[in-house]
Amino acid sequence: MINKLIDNIVKTNAPIVVGLDPMLNYIPSYIQKISFEQYGETLKGAAEAIWTYNKGIIDATYDLIPAVKPQIAMYEQFGIEGIIAFHKTCEYAKQRGLVVIGDIKRGDIGSTSTAYAVGHLGHVMVGSQKLAAFDEDFVTVNPYLGTDGVKPFVDVCKEENKGIFVLVKTSNPSSGEFQDQLVDGKPLYELVASKVVEWGNECMGDTYSNVGCVVGATYPEMGKVLRKLMPKTYILVPGYGAQGGKAEDLVHYFNNDGLGAIVNSSRGIIAAYKQDKYSKFGEEHYADASRQAVIDMIEDINGALGKMTK
Amino acid sequence: MINKLIDNIVKTNAPIVVGLDPMLNYIPSYIQKISFEQYGETLKGAAEAIWTYNKGIIDATYDLIPAVKPQIAMYEQFGIEGIIAFHKTCEYAKQRGLVVIGDIKRGDIGSTSTAYAVGHLGHVMVGSQKLAAFDEDFVTVNPYLGTDGVKPFVDVCKEENKGIFVLVKTSNPSSGEFQDQLVDGKPLYELVASKVVEWGNECMGDTYSNVGCVVGATYPEMGKVLRKLMPKTYILVPGYGAQGGKAEDLVHYFNNDGLGAIVNSSRGIIAAYKQDKYSKFGEEHYADASRQAVIDMIEDINGALGKMTK
Repeated sequence: MINKLIDNIVKTNAPIVVGLDPMLNYIPSYIQKISFEQYGETLKGAAEAIWTYNKGIIDATYDLIPAVKPQIAMYEQFGIEGIIAFHKTCEYAKQRGLVVIGDIKRGDIGSTSTAYAVGHLGHVMVGSQKLAAFDEDFVTVNPYLGTDGVKPFVDVCKEENKGIFVLVKTSNPSSGEFQDQLVDGKPLYELVASKVVEWGNECMGDTYSNVGCVVGATYPEMGKVLRKLMPKTYILVPGYGAQGGKAEDLVHYFNNDGLGAIVNSSRGIIAAYKQDKYSKFGEEHYADASRQAVIDMIEDINGALGKMTK
Repeated sequence: MINKLIDNIVKTNAPIVVGLDPMLNYIPSYIQKISFEQYGETLKGAAEAIWTYNKGIIDATYDLIPAVKPQIAMYEQFGIEGIIAFHKTCEYAKQRGLVVIGDIKRGDIGSTSTAYAVGHLGHVMVGSQKLAAFDEDFVTVNPYLGTDGVKPFVDVCKEENKGIFVLVKTSNPSSGEFQDQLVDGKPLYELVASKVVEWGNECMGDTYSNVGCVVGATYPEMGKVLRKLMPKTYILVPGYGAQGGKAEDLVHYFNNDGLGAIVNSSRGIIAAYKQDKYSKFGEEHYADASRQAVIDMIEDINGALGKMTK
């Protein structure tokens, strides 16, 4: 699956991913109104509004981008109806040729991690039938439980040609509380990174591994070190834009082949119409605003990368 | 909510929780057959079989136990239909007076953790309506992202009188890979424990905090130390039985008040009828086998605790 992601990145010349993390207050009021008129102010009403909103964004951007990253929490908060919207969003994005990175941050032990892995990436046996449930292309995985929490995901990736991104250094302010603690003189996230390399060696694509990692844009110095420690690991980079990460900070997350990283933006793209910069679009053309924000983001990042390769 | 959990524990004299972690191969074939005849060998067929099976176990044990702990991965693997079965199980257990601990091991940053917290423990706003989605009583939380990953859960617990159990030291063989790493001479899990105490101080019940933790039965020496470091923290203890944890190992997870820990068993209870010891019940009476296994587990653990208090 990493091969397909890289193909998509090369084809679009866009090392970016759009985070489909819909908050209800991002969704234009006219969409909410239509949905609430039909389904009431219910969980289903919210979920249908999210789905309509996402579809608009996918339709307006799919030809420019390689992938989307729906954050399942934003759907799960609306219960079963929300999860239905998550699933519809994943399916629709795949139909549009996009790679789907399910930002689910799951992680458990043994058979429980296997259950998450088969449910999100693989197939589950029901009687004599082998059935897919959510069927994302990649998911994010939390490594706190160690190898036997992550290995079941790797095994499913091998069987199903799928991929994962393991949390190494997250973008949030308090990520250092545990992740930066020194273990034998080195931060814990470097130890996690070394395991990511180990897990990833088992599950290589052509040039990069199907086991990627997450390193926040908000910690560029650490990103630089981690890039070198994990040369064949694709880095999913959250934290660009709204969280403060800048394009010039991201240059060292990439390898000299111009690959190796994919930068996420959520709010900055999906709620672009709310920014002064894109307010001229108006909420009815929220998706066009998202398209313009994607174009600007690609230019911003490719511009910074161009500087590096000079 | 910790008050209610403790009330239930005292009332039943049973410091245990039944893990509703259904694997399809635990479910008696006659239940699978009925479900597959009605819904086919589909995700819905699997989910309905799980729900029937769970209902039988809850009906047979609810008067003996304080709580159940459904492991959401085992439902999520069957997609939306599976999650519907999860939700029905949670609702039914609550109707039966049980405390529901959703074993979801979620954890993300900021607004994303808030979304998980409101979806699983609280209420989400949809227009002018405040709606509950999954509405468990407790959930398990992964701390790898630090305070700003956990705090949103604590905030929802405060508002909604709910609780969480934060992973400190998990029961699996490779849990030590990261959790045991020495940070300033002390294992990382102790640092996490100190944060659990800090988070928990904000959210106290009468005698224990609504912020509990998870410490595996398979590491009794560590459990002993952690008990002392977190005197007001309830410890959810997985790993008893099938994973190898023994009652005598668990004594030091409890405080002198006889409280402070709740021991989980999943397979050992829900698939009891598959053990030689309970095979006389036969698969048609799987729920009676589960009831007997609960009685035996309570006796085993109370016996060990009795020894301690002598």
